[in-house]
Amino acid sequence: MRPRCSVLTGLAACLLLGPLAATAQDDMLWRQVAEENTVYMELQEGLVVLELNPAFAPKTVQQFKRLVQEDFYRGLSFYRVIEGFVAQGGDESDIGIPTTQPSLKAEFEISWDDELPWMRVEQKDFYRAETGFIDGFAAARSGKKAWLTHCPGVVAMARETDPDSSRTDFYIVIGQAPRYLDRNLTIFARVIYGMDVVQRIRRGPIEQNGIIENDLDRSRIVRMHMAAEVEVEQKKDFYVMDTSSKGFKGYMDQRRNRKDDFFHQKPPKVLDVCQVPVGIRAEKADVPEQLLTPLLEQATENSPGEAGG
Amino acid sequence: MRPRCSVLTGLAACLLLGPLAATAQDDMLWRQVAEENTVYMELQEGLVVLELNPAFAPKTVQQFKRLVQEDFYRGLSFYRVIEGFVAQGGDESDIGIPTTQPSLKAEFEISWDDELPWMRVEQKDFYRAETGFIDGFAAARSGKKAWLTHCPGVVAMARETDPDSSRTDFYIVIGQAPRYLDRNLTIFARVIYGMDVVQRIRRGPIEQNGIIENDLDRSRIVRMHMAAEVEVEQKKDFYVMDTSSKGFKGYMDQRRNRKDDFFHQKPPKVLDVCQVPVGIRAEKADVPEQLLTPLLEQATENSPGEAGG
Repeated sequence: MRPRCSVLTGLAACLLLGPLAATAQDDMLWRQVAEENTVYMELQEGLVVLELNPAFAPKTVQQFKRLVQEDFYRGLSFYRVIEGFVAQGGDESDIGIPTTQPSLKAEFEISWDDELPWMRVEQKDFYRAETGFIDGFAAARSGKKAWLTHCPGVVAMARETDPDSSRTDFYIVIGQAPRYLDRNLTIFARVIYGMDVVQRIRRGPIEQNGIIENDLDRSRIVRMHMAAEVEVEQKKDFYVMDTSSKGFKGYMDQRRNRKDDFFHQKPPKVLDVCQVPVGIRAEKADVPEQLLTPLLEQATENSPGEAGG
Repeated sequence: MRPRCSVLTGLAACLLLGPLAATAQDDMLWRQVAEENTVYMELQEGLVVLELNPAFAPKTVQQFKRLVQEDFYRGLSFYRVIEGFVAQGGDESDIGIPTTQPSLKAEFEISWDDELPWMRVEQKDFYRAETGFIDGFAAARSGKKAWLTHCPGVVAMARETDPDSSRTDFYIVIGQAPRYLDRNLTIFARVIYGMDVVQRIRRGPIEQNGIIENDLDRSRIVRMHMAAEVEVEQKKDFYVMDTSSKGFKGYMDQRRNRKDDFFHQKPPKVLDVCQVPVGIRAEKADVPEQLLTPLLEQATENSPGEAGG
């Protein structure tokens, strides 16, 4: 048994020796999230920050950025929210409310390119494709195609049966990865900050497929801004683990091969691409280096109870 | 394109033709959750209901029930909460606060028994075991052993390195299934109601491994009661899908083999045992049949945007 850590004295330091050690490797590199791909989504429940992915969904990102810049989402709601599945928001055009916004061509997958910064996770995943990371996004590939994969925190466009029918309504995955949706919807962003806030979005009734009919009962988008439009004192620089770095590979290897005495039954040496938290740091320009906890919460790897044991 | 459903007129009826149709099969049977295995956990955020599993963790369930009956958990907090991973609560004995409660022998797995009401999901899952359901609980088996598996909503005992060191502290899985913990911790219950409430439990900072040092910042357990002790007007009867019924098998088959036109790219015909919502109904004794929405939210199967399309 390792030395006890008291909650009152030195717990933080003590715990740092544990799970975070894996993420604090010397060779872990960090990539700064580009300002032009950073969206601040202010909900009634708090701040959520998204990173857009123009490499996989250029046209969708372009339209989404335009909508954000036009303040289109201001005051709109999450009108369809299913616990364990998705929170869907927008102007409700997806459920028949008329809109003048143009529909988007499907961007479900891209052509494989050997230049992509691919970090393999599994050669053959449960879903029969190779999984990996590209610039912090969980992805998969098969043959000459690659696509972003439906993990918790992923943001994608809702649509009707027509693959080219997405307009403004989007959803955030809030539960166990619905991987069966891969290559059928356009994933264009992911939550890099405030996933705990997303989890507070009010749920709808299942007998109405998650639709919250009473507008008053819905969580609302207060506003969305591109990072460039955010006031300096509220702005942060975001850094995500460089998923193509040696350090990230080492971090994955530690998760795949659990050597800790905690594991009396060694787990199978496999990694679910949606169960590898990509660590995130947030820094404020004039503060030395401020760790914003809700972000880094995603960077842990640990075992319940192991903390102080 | 199918007929549009207006939000204002007949949406509910319209949507019922969609996802819920699969769960409303004639041959779907429902099992009433035994009162002696039903725990009402009242949090500051709302009501959560657990179903205990004495078949897999008899001694743990026995001690947990005693603690509930002794009002042990009243006012205790969720002191370690990591977004996307677990919410851990109890008397903090797991992190070194002295307790007089006895430690429990590990109940990580049971011997396989051909009499178990096993409904197979996958013969060989990504985690290299056969997966299935037993009485609504996601489970796995290999050789002569069977165990409950770490899906969202699962409740298990925290422990230190010693496998027999669980006492009162438990955790609820709130993120992507951490299956690597299987057979290393004692799963003894699952959330059958109020998972949306669980998702509102306040998160802790990752640099302290999720520990919330300031007691005031923690979510609290107002009280826990066994169902038998709950006042009649607040009490509900809970019914879960009978996972050994033909109807449940049909429901799984529909999820495994997506025939809907929505799927332009047919998903691989595999099922993640943690991505099969086991439907739940709640009824009140003197009300004809009241569907409680947060429960049934877990019973859906659908596609974002498909709702009104």
